[in-house]
Amino acid sequence: MKLKSTSLMVAGVLLGAAVMPVQADPMLDLLQVLRDKGTISAEDYSLLSNAAKAKGEQTAAEKEEIMAKVESKSSSSVTVDSKGLNFQSADKAFTVNIGGRIHADYGFVDDDYFGANNTGIGNEFGNGSQFRRARLGMNGTMFTDWIYELEINYGGADGDTGFTDAIIGYKGFDSTTIKLGRHKMPAGLEELTSSNRISTMERSMATNTFALSRFNGLSVERKGSNWTVMGGTWMGEGNGDTDNNNKDSDWGAAGRFTFAPIQERNSVVHLGASISYIDFEKVGGDNQNIRVRQRANRFVNERPVQVTYNDTKSANTYGLELATIQGPFSLQGEYFYRTLDRKDFKDADIDGWYILGTYTLTGETRGYRDGRMRTISPRNPVGQGGAGAWELVARYDELDLWDSSAAREAGSVSGLRGTKAENWTLGLNWYVNDNIRFMANYVDSKIKDSSPNDNTGKIKAFTLRGQVAF
Amino acid sequence: MKLKSTSLMVAGVLLGAAVMPVQADPMLDLLQVLRDKGTISAEDYSLLSNAAKAKGEQTAAEKEEIMAKVESKSSSSVTVDSKGLNFQSADKAFTVNIGGRIHADYGFVDDDYFGANNTGIGNEFGNGSQFRRARLGMNGTMFTDWIYELEINYGGADGDTGFTDAIIGYKGFDSTTIKLGRHKMPAGLEELTSSNRISTMERSMATNTFALSRFNGLSVERKGSNWTVMGGTWMGEGNGDTDNNNKDSDWGAAGRFTFAPIQERNSVVHLGASISYIDFEKVGGDNQNIRVRQRANRFVNERPVQVTYNDTKSANTYGLELATIQGPFSLQGEYFYRTLDRKDFKDADIDGWYILGTYTLTGETRGYRDGRMRTISPRNPVGQGGAGAWELVARYDELDLWDSSAAREAGSVSGLRGTKAENWTLGLNWYVNDNIRFMANYVDSKIKDSSPNDNTGKIKAFTLRGQVAF
Amino acid sequence: MKLKSTSLMVAGVLLGAAVMPVQADPMLDLLQVLRDKGTISAEDYSLLSNAAKAKGEQTAAEKEEIMAKVESKSSSSVTVDSKGLNFQSADKAFTVNIGGRIHADYGFVDDDYFGANNTGIGNEFGNGSQFRRARLGMNGTMFTDWIYELEINYGGADGDTGFTDAIIGYKGFDSTTIKLGRHKMPAGLEELTSSNRISTMERSMATNTFALSRFNGLSVERKGSNWTVMGGTWMGEGNGDTDNNNKDSDWGAAGRFTFAPIQERNSVVHLGASISYIDFEKVGGDNQNIRVRQRANRFVNERPVQVTYNDTKSANTYGLELATIQGPFSLQGEYFYRTLDRKDFKDADIDGWYILGTYTLTGETRGYRDGRMRTISPRNPVGQGGAGAWELVARYDELDLWDSSAAREAGSVSGLRGTKAENWTLGLNWYVNDNIRFMANYVDSKIKDSSPNDNTGKIKAFTLRGQVAF
Repeated sequence: MKLKSTSLMVAGVLLGAAVMPVQADPMLDLLQVLRDKGTISAEDYSLLSNAAKAKGEQTAAEKEEIMAKVESKSSSSVTVDSKGLNFQSADKAFTVNIGGRIHADYGFVDDDYFGANNTGIGNEFGNGSQFRRARLGMNGTMFTDWIYELEINYGGADGDTGFTDAIIGYKGFDSTTIKLGRHKMPAGLEELTSSNRISTMERSMATNTFALSRFNGLSVERKGSNWTVMGGTWMGEGNGDTDNNNKDSDWGAAGRFTFAPIQERNSVVHLGASISYIDFEKVGGDNQNIRVRQRANRFVNERPVQVTYNDTKSANTYGLELATIQGPFSLQGEYFYRTLDRKDFKDADIDGWYILGTYTLTGETRGYRDGRMRTISPRNPVGQGGAGAWELVARYDELDLWDSSAAREAGSVSGLRGTKAENWTLGLNWYVNDNIRFMANYVDSKIKDSSPNDNTGKIKAFTLRGQVAF
Repeated sequence: MKLKSTSLMVAGVLLGAAVMPVQADPMLDLLQVLRDKGTISAEDYSLLSNAAKAKGEQTAAEKEEIMAKVESKSSSSVTVDSKGLNFQSADKAFTVNIGGRIHADYGFVDDDYFGANNTGIGNEFGNGSQFRRARLGMNGTMFTDWIYELEINYGGADGDTGFTDAIIGYKGFDSTTIKLGRHKMPAGLEELTSSNRISTMERSMATNTFALSRFNGLSVERKGSNWTVMGGTWMGEGNGDTDNNNKDSDWGAAGRFTFAPIQERNSVVHLGASISYIDFEKVGGDNQNIRVRQRANRFVNERPVQVTYNDTKSANTYGLELATIQGPFSLQGEYFYRTLDRKDFKDADIDGWYILGTYTLTGETRGYRDGRMRTISPRNPVGQGGAGAWELVARYDELDLWDSSAAREAGSVSGLRGTKAENWTLGLNWYVNDNIRFMANYVDSKIKDSSPNDNTGKIKAFTLRGQVAF
Repeated sequence: MKLKSTSLMVAGVLLGAAVMPVQADPMLDLLQVLRDKGTISAEDYSLLSNAAKAKGEQTAAEKEEIMAKVESKSSSSVTVDSKGLNFQSADKAFTVNIGGRIHADYGFVDDDYFGANNTGIGNEFGNGSQFRRARLGMNGTMFTDWIYELEINYGGADGDTGFTDAIIGYKGFDSTTIKLGRHKMPAGLEELTSSNRISTMERSMATNTFALSRFNGLSVERKGSNWTVMGGTWMGEGNGDTDNNNKDSDWGAAGRFTFAPIQERNSVVHLGASISYIDFEKVGGDNQNIRVRQRANRFVNERPVQVTYNDTKSANTYGLELATIQGPFSLQGEYFYRTLDRKDFKDADIDGWYILGTYTLTGETRGYRDGRMRTISPRNPVGQGGAGAWELVARYDELDLWDSSAAREAGSVSGLRGTKAENWTLGLNWYVNDNIRFMANYVDSKIKDSSPNDNTGKIKAFTLRGQVAF
């Protein structure tokens, strides 16, 4: 382009006129030269230069017409790719993403659960299929700084339809996101990692019991280059459309802090801590009998681990997170501890933890961003000369709902089933491409009750999932 | 452009040829002049003019190629802005709008309701949150004259998911819209104003009791420059997925007429009248015991005002509307009167009314169109140098479900709770931009029962809403 | 274009230079000629030819800029027309279709059902309206070979919201489609024809009883030019969100084969056969008491035909299909036969069949493809100078749920209502355009019970539907 501007400036100088470079027309220059040399008459010059100017104007008008057509035809843009269906206004102030997910599960369950000492779960757990999640949603930006999200969810053994996230948010402050509405409150690495991205088909029992999942409230999250801090508070919805244990709380508040001392492409070390307060004052009339319970896996409808702590006013929960990613290998663990504050009975202390390791046979590295795990993007997707990505997973998790000293008081607990569970999960994941994943999990659960002779029930399950996210 | 066409015509005349202006090429003109003057040879002229023509053809072909690409790439257009996501076919015969709304509510309720003289609502009403509405929908035009609308709704204290509007329509006749399917039947200014646009978080008790809301039927609406007339008829769906009082009617018919003697940008006077007939013949087997009831507000699940009029065959309802908008100020009121026609008992007459005033602190004027109120569009949205629009609201409404002469007959009524309610609502609305609104309402309810000593219950509530509509 | 390339080559030869035709600039040629002739000086030549080159470069840069803008604005394309809202990525590897349907039904029912000999259905069946189907869905292609489908459904007398199809699929093998998730398993021509396309408002009782409808499982379908073969297997979901009789099966498998010896535009002969195995082993604990039942029509909520065969382990079902399309005329029939395999009782044999004829008054021919019926596309849609397409329909169908020898054993059956039904259906369809259809059906049902005196109940219904599909 150097030639262009130089030559045009030279041409401009030659013609001794204030010709703007982009409007320069060599035809006009030539005509002037020819007139000056007497090759063409002044009259010819006048007619020819007018014609040349007219031609130039016409060309410019045509270009404008084309640009206007392009603009009018596509004042907003649309993109459809592996990230779903995305729209953006010309000024980028408005965006819309439409997408969804299907998690179709198939399970084979074998159990020997308290056969002789039935505590209420006598039926054999069955084989079957279920849609763990089928979701369609819409989210986006409005007036640059405001965000919204709305997602319809169908799923679980109940097969109910409801909404998951439904928020209004603001991202106009630096590195900060404020959200109002139903969304995940700050607690737990496994919980805050999307269900499209976690390495096992189900989160650990500890996460499902102690992490908060979605509440209707207000949160503020601030992110640095390698840390995040998030605080939130909520009021109970009390309409039980999810089986979250804490849904019926009167209100609560929570905070989480994460720090990644190492955060490189192939090497991450993540530390995290969370704390939450849940108030049960208004739940269940005068008696706040709070049930804590958990499934062994998703094909076991009746939760085999369950204790109801009567007369519970509130709960304080503490969580610790530790994780590392090293090339194809990742390891993560969390520990949760909860104190149930009770009016007339002793406070009860319950806890749970898990440790999870993953190894990508095909060499890909798990993603990590903003204090949350991300997924694996296969280097060689199926259909593009590859076999996708293959991942091995192992997890051990424990949940202990039994505080024997607090539970021993008369009338202190009710609704007892098993009180402690230990799960082993082995998994194999196949990432076909960025949208499709197939998962196989083998889960071996040991469930103990609170009796002195420490009965043990066993539930073994082999489960499969077809997952598509778009 | 005057120069252009003149010079080209001159050039055309000069060359003595039927040159179309757009095909004029000054290079050809120059070559001809140079040949005529003998500056270039006839052979040179021939070669050079062929080259110039070829260049012109190439340019024209390139333009065509670009235009074809523009056309092929965008046979239909997409727009994303504050009005949601909109699509239109090239011939405008087909359009699609995709949008939604979230109304996230938070409430604090204080009550002293018939403590000593419990009539069935003994529990303290609680604080909490709820999604009053979370909706995703699609509507549009097909073959120019046909319309459709389909909207998924999640919301209310029950947290059920269903559909609101689901219609097929025709707008091919002049100023006329015909709709078949579930949609709002003609009754009530407050009812027919969208929930995104009403000034209080909830409509008045009178509107919720007597206006018709959505039924599955057929309606015809015709609009003039300052009047509307709408008639509709429906059959009951009988599947109770909303808590509309009249849902289970066997069938019904209704009509509404509105007239705006003044309808200017800053000054509106609105008059309206409606009439409806509801037939209960087939409801509840042989006994048409029709329950009339209402909430004090949305955080009071058990409706404190309730009377069941036994043996009711049908209902005739009459409504009157009066409203005015004067710059930042608006005032509207409605009165409803219903006669319940009964087989073996005296007919019962019940009624309700409200009056609502709004004042926009930031000076904006409420919209009005086609016999319905519209919303406020902030002059200075947040993020564009402004603080949005701020609005003050006050409403008084009464509902009297007790016809003492009709109710005194033995066996004439049942399911009694409070029978009369008086509500004061004070509100403050913040319109952040055209998509987002935050609302705060204080509601003070007095509820009286039918006993001679006229017990009075009190329910006070402070409620907040975050609203996004896209 | 011949002139162009020829003249440019000539020009190239003239100038004795390796000028690429598209870069040829007649101005440069002229300047060279003028310099060679001495009309302009070497210095002028140099300046003028530089200016001309710069102008050429600028024009090329502008064209590139426009093309880039076109590309960036519309890397993906959108189309909205009678086929709904469609998106496609530039490389066609990703597509999205968003669409829906509304079936709004209105019914008038007259009945005289076992008045004297009440078998549990004493209430008069009522008039009313219902949304038979209201659906919004999204489906498409990912990475060329993979497909997904997800559709939200609201409808039926229950008014529940759930999902219909939810699948992940693969179409990368030749003429073959593999689907995983909830979708229609292979059985029945009427069942596999979309509800937007069947000629009557409801499928026959035989189809609704014996064809499989949607299960969560795996299927493979392979298509030839005039044949299809499809096999599928599934596991029960056991969450009863549809009223499919077989939903609660433990697992099952099915296959269907179709062949069209004649498959021309106006003449089709279709043959089909299907077989399925349903296992009930795990349903209902130890007692597999399998209820077989059917509605007379959709406005009769309590199913008048019902037999529960106790102690049933599994079912084998056989289906035969025969259909022909001859210009405006079509005829189709199906027969189903099921054997219920029982542990301690005699096996029970039940069956059903229908025959359906359609005639298009306006001359259009029904579509047929891949072993399924398609719809009628009106030649002259309303609003385009026509009256749409009009179609007459008649169907007779029978369902016999009573195996007297198997049922006679004590304790062998339970939950008895009517045991045999014969329905006549007469219909008139108006296809307004490719999106909208109105239907009117008159259904005359005779229902017999198992008593020796062979009581007969009668249910007559007149039903209307407004249908929009987009």
